Amino acid sequence: MKRYLAPVVLSLATALAGCQSLPSSSSSSSADQPVTLRGTGDLGLIIERATGSVLVIDHSEHEILGRVEGLGDLSHASVVYSRDARYGYVFGRDGGLTKVDLLTRTISERVIQGGNSIGGAISQDGRYVAVSNYEPGGVNIFDAETLETLMEIPAVYTNAEGEQGQSKTVGLVDAPGNQFVFSLFEAGEIWTVDMHSTPPDVARYDAGKEPYDSLITPDGRYYIAGLFGEDGLSMMDLWAPEKGAQTILPDYGKGEQRLPVYKMPHLEGWAIADGYAFVPAVGRHEVLVANMTDWSMVDRIPVQGQPVFVMSSPDNRQIWVSFAHPKNDVVQVIDSQTRKIIRTLAPGKSVLHMEFTPRGEEVWVSSRDSDRVTVYSTRTLEPVATLPAHKPSGIFFTSRAHRLGL
Amino acid sequence: MKRYLAPVVLSLATALAGCQSLPSSSSSSSADQPVTLRGTGDLGLIIERATGSVLVIDHSEHEILGRVEGLGDLSHASVVYSRDARYGYVFGRDGGLTKVDLLTRTISERVIQGGNSIGGAISQDGRYVAVSNYEPGGVNIFDAETLETLMEIPAVYTNAEGEQGQSKTVGLVDAPGNQFVFSLFEAGEIWTVDMHSTPPDVARYDAGKEPYDSLITPDGRYYIAGLFGEDGLSMMDLWAPEKGAQTILPDYGKGEQRLPVYKMPHLEGWAIADGYAFVPAVGRHEVLVANMTDWSMVDRIPVQGQPVFVMSSPDNRQIWVSFAHPKNDVVQVIDSQTRKIIRTLAPGKSVLHMEFTPRGEEVWVSSRDSDRVTVYSTRTLEPVATLPAHKPSGIFFTSRAHRLGL
Repeated sequence: MKRYLAPVVLSLATALAGCQSLPSSSSSSSADQPVTLRGTGDLGLIIERATGSVLVIDHSEHEILGRVEGLGDLSHASVVYSRDARYGYVFGRDGGLTKVDLLTRTISERVIQGGNSIGGAISQDGRYVAVSNYEPGGVNIFDAETLETLMEIPAVYTNAEGEQGQSKTVGLVDAPGNQFVFSLFEAGEIWTVDMHSTPPDVARYDAGKEPYDSLITPDGRYYIAGLFGEDGLSMMDLWAPEKGAQTILPDYGKGEQRLPVYKMPHLEGWAIADGYAFVPAVGRHEVLVANMTDWSMVDRIPVQGQPVFVMSSPDNRQIWVSFAHPKNDVVQVIDSQTRKIIRTLAPGKSVLHMEFTPRGEEVWVSSRDSDRVTVYSTRTLEPVATLPAHKPSGIFFTSRAHRLGL
Repeated sequence: MKRYLAPVVLSLATALAGCQSLPSSSSSSSADQPVTLRGTGDLGLIIERATGSVLVIDHSEHEILGRVEGLGDLSHASVVYSRDARYGYVFGRDGGLTKVDLLTRTISERVIQGGNSIGGAISQDGRYVAVSNYEPGGVNIFDAETLETLMEIPAVYTNAEGEQGQSKTVGLVDAPGNQFVFSLFEAGEIWTVDMHSTPPDVARYDAGKEPYDSLITPDGRYYIAGLFGEDGLSMMDLWAPEKGAQTILPDYGKGEQRLPVYKMPHLEGWAIADGYAFVPAVGRHEVLVANMTDWSMVDRIPVQGQPVFVMSSPDNRQIWVSFAHPKNDVVQVIDSQTRKIIRTLAPGKSVLHMEFTPRGEEVWVSSRDSDRVTVYSTRTLEPVATLPAHKPSGIFFTSRAHRLGL
């Protein structure tokens, strides 16, 4: 329950060491469609992880508008969007942060901001983009317009031997009140950064051992970190940060074989439907169901493999589950009310990600080793379109611009 | 609990009687800003009710981009958006349906579709726009692209005397599964229209007496109609339509003076936060709090006038309340956790509407008789901008394109 307030080390970097600004490039675009005046509400990006490229797609027409290349190492890449839904910020594994213009299908800005990035977020007001890094451990914050470095927040902590270190940072999300929230793996802490203050107000909270990923509930209230070093999860109620992090689901992961971090299920994939959280079991062929009012575990749904993403449709009626290697050529759909599997789908080899259209009539599924994306109707559960893509992984639609906690 | 299935009278009209197609007009635009390639995620429309015009605004910059004129009678007008967030469909009181292009700030299509329209909706897949009419009572459905009339659904019913009539239709919303749902005032029924079938499958359910407005929960599951003719409300669980409409909050409105329909609180303004619904009391200076798990009334929050809109911020922490004449120069802000009023604001004379930015950092408030819109920070509760507008009423941002139940 300890709460540490600032000071933390805050370097307001104007020229961040190791930060390399690359020229904007329009030659990186291979726009197949002419650039025209159009709305941006039905656009999206598909990560092509092996080729460092992204596809710009139109999800109304099931159409690829063009490809933007030159984004570096896009294994495990993710995307957030500008307030106007025109620009995607692509966080690459190699520390690259690339601002992609979906209308012109060009790179408008690109920096190499750190050695090993694992995700980012955009502030509630759209002014700040934050990136969390493994190496050196910390969070860097950029001007969303220019990608100019505004500050770096090294994740410094003192370990059990009294030595100072710098922790890997994980589970970075935005939260209401123009905050960023993230976890420190080695330090076992959760930090909040309030971007309203200058310099930002950083608060530190003790969490469980080795948080490795996190999620935040859709209203931005509960931040939940998965723990690699112990059973259970650490939850912070951001409406009452003074209470610090609480342990919830104490049996979560209990007795399970310890798995490498890269095989842990994605927490951002937790589905929340009808007062229940549908949670990927760690290392087991089950989706767990927890009652969110008291965080008790109420059900276990057997599935065909180790779940990775467990995502609810926007209307909360369906839970779509993707799986870890080697049983990752299949997606299963669960009815959230009956908690039964209603369909097993075979979208292709190595399913990596799923994205629902904003109002949920369709869902896009990427199959890396089949080099395609399949679009399903959530009503018929049948495919309605397929699109070719080079080793596609993440799929991110611009409607994310308007949601908290991404 | 009776359930009637089709047949209902369905005229697949190619040339709807009384439907008058007006020429597209770009001369109706008075664009102040040049038309440029830009994202549409941070745009919106403000209704200028007295002049039949709308302002196109940019909520990132607090800027008016231009005015579009020639939309007819816009008292009580509302707006839904196309899937790409480029076009707004404006439903006018006079039965006018106008498709406004927010990028070029021109009218791209306009029809006079009925005698007295009171609202509309766009289907989950974005293909259909539906308009509900008082006179003649029914719902007309249009192609979202062209505004071509696809069908009319007259709200026919048989009254207690065995005579057939046509009912006013109210509370029209979209619902998951590409449905439209609406209520019939005189008939006391709720109808669902499934747009997947050809012709659409229309189902009719008995509801309470004289439904006058409705809301649907954000996930599209519960459709709740307010009743003018009796106490309580009629609720349909759209996940189990075979159960028909149930009565909830049986004391709602009890003992209250019967008020004219036009002064009844807007149900679409109900706030849902943290498992509780914050509900405007009918004719009383109170906001009611109901537990949504059992629909019991758990609290009454005294406020300064008769509430009209009771809206929760996107993070569910604040409840913003606007009021009926004559105490309508004030907005009160309630903390959703403590249920205390935390601020009383004076945005101007005759406050008519409020709209939160998609991630909730600001809220726009229209003051009709002060001819202005005031933008507040939800953090400081202080104004951050004001914009001039002619008798502004409704404010509608394009992020609505991505939400269910509007």
